[in-house]
Amino acid sequence: MAENRRKTAITPTREDDYAEWYQQVVRQGDLAETSPVRGCMVIRPWGYALWENIRDRLDAMFKETGHRNAYFPLFIPKSYLEKEAEHVEGFAKECAVVTHHRLEASPEGGLQPAGELEEPLVVRPTSETIIGATYARWVQSYRDLPILINQWANVVRWELRTRLFLRTAEFLWQEGHTVHETEAEAWEETVRMLNVYQTFAESFMAMPVIAGEKTAGERFPGAVRTLCIESMMQDRKALQAGTSHFLGQNFARSSGITYQSREGREEFAWTTSWGVSTRLIGGLIMTHADDDGMVMPPRLAPAHAVLLPIIRRDSDRERIMAYVHKVAAALRQERFDGAPVRVEIDDREVNAGEKGWEWVRRGVPLRVEIGPRDMEKDAVFVARRDRGPKEKTSLPWKQFVQNVGSELEDIQSSLFERALDRRERHTREVDTFSQLESFFTPVDGARPGIHGGFARAHWCGREECEKRINDELSVTIRSVPLEEEGFTEPGKCICCGNESRTRVVMAKSY
Amino acid sequence: MAENRRKTAITPTREDDYAEWYQQVVRQGDLAETSPVRGCMVIRPWGYALWENIRDRLDAMFKETGHRNAYFPLFIPKSYLEKEAEHVEGFAKECAVVTHHRLEASPEGGLQPAGELEEPLVVRPTSETIIGATYARWVQSYRDLPILINQWANVVRWELRTRLFLRTAEFLWQEGHTVHETEAEAWEETVRMLNVYQTFAESFMAMPVIAGEKTAGERFPGAVRTLCIESMMQDRKALQAGTSHFLGQNFARSSGITYQSREGREEFAWTTSWGVSTRLIGGLIMTHADDDGMVMPPRLAPAHAVLLPIIRRDSDRERIMAYVHKVAAALRQERFDGAPVRVEIDDREVNAGEKGWEWVRRGVPLRVEIGPRDMEKDAVFVARRDRGPKEKTSLPWKQFVQNVGSELEDIQSSLFERALDRRERHTREVDTFSQLESFFTPVDGARPGIHGGFARAHWCGREECEKRINDELSVTIRSVPLEEEGFTEPGKCICCGNESRTRVVMAKSY
Repeated sequence: MAENRRKTAITPTREDDYAEWYQQVVRQGDLAETSPVRGCMVIRPWGYALWENIRDRLDAMFKETGHRNAYFPLFIPKSYLEKEAEHVEGFAKECAVVTHHRLEASPEGGLQPAGELEEPLVVRPTSETIIGATYARWVQSYRDLPILINQWANVVRWELRTRLFLRTAEFLWQEGHTVHETEAEAWEETVRMLNVYQTFAESFMAMPVIAGEKTAGERFPGAVRTLCIESMMQDRKALQAGTSHFLGQNFARSSGITYQSREGREEFAWTTSWGVSTRLIGGLIMTHADDDGMVMPPRLAPAHAVLLPIIRRDSDRERIMAYVHKVAAALRQERFDGAPVRVEIDDREVNAGEKGWEWVRRGVPLRVEIGPRDMEKDAVFVARRDRGPKEKTSLPWKQFVQNVGSELEDIQSSLFERALDRRERHTREVDTFSQLESFFTPVDGARPGIHGGFARAHWCGREECEKRINDELSVTIRSVPLEEEGFTEPGKCICCGNESRTRVVMAKSY
Repeated sequence: MAENRRKTAITPTREDDYAEWYQQVVRQGDLAETSPVRGCMVIRPWGYALWENIRDRLDAMFKETGHRNAYFPLFIPKSYLEKEAEHVEGFAKECAVVTHHRLEASPEGGLQPAGELEEPLVVRPTSETIIGATYARWVQSYRDLPILINQWANVVRWELRTRLFLRTAEFLWQEGHTVHETEAEAWEETVRMLNVYQTFAESFMAMPVIAGEKTAGERFPGAVRTLCIESMMQDRKALQAGTSHFLGQNFARSSGITYQSREGREEFAWTTSWGVSTRLIGGLIMTHADDDGMVMPPRLAPAHAVLLPIIRRDSDRERIMAYVHKVAAALRQERFDGAPVRVEIDDREVNAGEKGWEWVRRGVPLRVEIGPRDMEKDAVFVARRDRGPKEKTSLPWKQFVQNVGSELEDIQSSLFERALDRRERHTREVDTFSQLESFFTPVDGARPGIHGGFARAHWCGREECEKRINDELSVTIRSVPLEEEGFTEPGKCICCGNESRTRVVMAKSY
């Protein structure tokens, strides 16, 4: 089969080796690379510009919902982490521990750690405990509530098997931490932020998600309830893309966040936390990228269009560059998504074909080639990244400029539709355990490792049945629709036949 | 004396105890506070919003000068730090060392560090070595140069004596790291970024600075030359507010950043690094704050104006709030510094006087009180933070709105002028060592700890004379004017009488 395929910009293809394809898209799309520090990545400028766009958009949404940013310490004293039993249990196995505060000459030469700390410090894997200690000081009365704060920060979880963006020892994220007077308000906040994540994922990332709740076994350590958004990747596995935790009074109790109520009683407050991370970039890649590399949704793309002057003779240079700059200036007058269109001009003296492929791999939504013949016709030669790399259209430049906003809108919505369609094609209602088994079993001729998808099946809610699904099929329950939101569809558990309130989503996952 | 002074919002005053006044301005201005982690601070939302404005403005200036952001690992393997001898010498004594990657149950109960790392990791105190390792992979040929990258990050230096913003174990900063083909280009970049810092400090922070060079003894560990901006605080000490380092080929050599030159030879590249940090906020406070608390320069203030409804009877509430919202909406239509005026409405049900003083301490440029009588007159009652707290003016609201932009401009320039005037009053040309000594010696009746200022004096350039000034007077050479920029003013060294090219700035410092 392979010999009939066209040459792709990324080797291997998704079909040949999905995991390696992913790494190559990240590398060759100039998004990130591994570093000399185990599990830590270097986010390259093009990838970081994408993260800046993600951050700025989310930040605006957080501010619109009444949150403000603050910054808390990188380090957590060991004793703080120990205050919440489930929490420390969840993070103790994979944390970076600072034990010394200087290096000094070693008798064997070189330097060795010295100045041992009285109490080891953990590099934050998440900040509930250290932020809780501060909130305990801030909160005295119901008048001090709610506290609605977010932090943009780096965190460290010492993962043994890492993958760029998806699972790295250090990653960038935001963590919201809020405190409320009542259970109802805290729950409302938990759901509100889940909705913010869903809106962001679908409207900006063009990544359809399923919003729901985690089972008890998949909850954040210390949470009473964990809500999440789950998305189907191109290998049909689920990616958890964001979580919003209702923490009840657990962390208020362990951190001592109490307030004097309206009735004058001392009460524990109710808290929430919610976060998304650079993992979103992994989700973006596995939702949209293809065998030619990254595909950026326009609303987050660092550049919307790249102009590629094609200069075959030096004597043409000046005239072509003037034309290119004229088109760029006109494009920058146009608006998309409430801001000027972002344009780059790539006039490096590199082979034009090579240069074009670089931008294909980087996933810029529109590539605009401009050579002497285009110029003579007052035209530009345009390729959309969401279509085949050879599919290019010659257009009068003014028409291209005039329509650039709607073209970008169209790319944005096409990407979403394509991803949604893929998810729908690979989502199936499954009514028995053996159907579930065969859904996740590759049949002859199927691509290795690519099978199954999202199974919508009934589950009674018991750990026992969940465990059977995990153990026998390496499949997990990804998302339980929220009863509070009216999701009810009674049936029988596919494992034990007991009553089930609703179908849940089961899938293999990252 | 104290009994005749008006009551100030901050106790103690600058005159009574400058160091404690500073801490109180930070705390009571809602800027930051200490945390349970030694030396690490919590940056509160109002302080963090100020940092966001600083960051966004600088970021725009970096991008205008051709730089892009990226992100590199938090951890540096010990062996990387060891590669540059002076560099490790400079940072080994104060670094957080990660030695383990998990916590496990200890026989004595509780948890203990486990999973010892083969090689300890240092939490970055600065990133030359880890970024250099990446650049060594990126750079092959002169065509790959220049590399112009900046990183926004947290860094850790294990300081024993810490002070909020000025010197903390963890702080936020940006670090630019660039690679160039030639010495001249790298030097040009070093100077360019110093100029960016000077422009930012003076135009946005309203903080006059002296741009110049550090002496050999005050250089960044590993740098060939260190340029800096120095500012005079209200206690007349100097604060180093930003540095730009010409690293020559030192780090290129230790990290192996080589490139094939235009002539086909393998050459070491030339690098620079430059940074400013949350320390700038300390400088902002000590430049502008007064005995009533913080004073924000309008171009960086999180809010330009706060509207304070004065509601004495519940029956007035609705009408007054409607009026307040009308004024707020009109203000937000006005522009200052290229963007809409930032307005907050504080309608908390708190005593009006108390509320007003809170905003005084936070330093918001304009406080606008609006009560029933103001409303009846179509007026507002306005106070400028840079004037006395009781100095308030009743103005027709439309007139206030119409002039708000120029009022903010005026505050911005007044703050700069006031700071510049203070510096000039406390800068003196000093021509002998004994004059220098008496300049820095408090005379009877002077406030303890507040004396001296910037001494402009001749220095021969020899370490010996510099050391005498340091040792005998606890005064350092803060800034040497750049010969390249044409600063020459020949004279005789105040210590030894040898030839001196120019006067340098000597001061006590933070």
